[in-house]
Amino acid sequence: MKNLIKTMEALIDNANVSIISSVDEAGFPNTKAMLPPRKRDGIKQFYFTTNTSSMRVSQFTANSKACIYFYDGRLFQGVMLTGTMDVQKDSKSKEMIWRTGDEMYYPAGVTDPDYSVLKFTAGNARFYSNFKSENVEL
Amino acid sequence: MKNLIKTMEALIDNANVSIISSVDEAGFPNTKAMLPPRKRDGIKQFYFTTNTSSMRVSQFTANSKACIYFYDGRLFQGVMLTGTMDVQKDSKSKEMIWRTGDEMYYPAGVTDPDYSVLKFTAGNARFYSNFKSENVEL
Repeated sequence: MKNLIKTMEALIDNANVSIISSVDEAGFPNTKAMLPPRKRDGIKQFYFTTNTSSMRVSQFTANSKACIYFYDGRLFQGVMLTGTMDVQKDSKSKEMIWRTGDEMYYPAGVTDPDYSVLKFTAGNARFYSNFKSENVEL
Repeated sequence: MKNLIKTMEALIDNANVSIISSVDEAGFPNTKAMLPPRKRDGIKQFYFTTNTSSMRVSQFTANSKACIYFYDGRLFQGVMLTGTMDVQKDSKSKEMIWRTGDEMYYPAGVTDPDYSVLKFTAGNARFYSNFKSENVEL
């Protein structure tokens, strides 16, 4: 199991996008490619930057059920994590993952009201490889 | 609007994976990379091959609300379509999108009971480009 989690972590760290899904007010899944996570703790917690004004933020505020997904198209492998996404607007969270250059997206800097943090906490993990999926204990 | 739809169609035809999302029995979005659609009619209907025994098929049978998503990581553009996914097991649908070589996945051929067709019908479309999203009339 340890080796499998290491494989999943390597796939996540090599992916150049994160695929984030929410559920909209009518109950439809909504999917979007986002930047890689800024920080992760194992495969249990992930932190992403986002625009406070985005549709994703309003959807996660109304319904925190989320999926984050990473895949390697060449190896045909994928990691799916389902869990909850919390929108964090406190300065501690915002400073934790801020990087030089983020002013390009948030001109007012780390206190820009349009800058928020998405914190994902996994409840379930699934690994897809070799045309088969398996659940992975977290 | 016509040009925008042409741009979205080109992005879809150039994508080498389809990102498919369902909603599971606990209300969480579930996302998976699948092969490109075998056939599409504009951006309204899409047909995919799938394994009858897959988790995705059981989820869409219980709840047909779906999202299909295509993106271009280089141009940072994405097409999100939400709508319904119908699992089709009739021979006409199965023959329509069957291709030589599919025996690799479905050894018994076009009548393999583990071969099914997913038919997606879009209700809403959204195009992401240049750090902004816009709804697109279907």
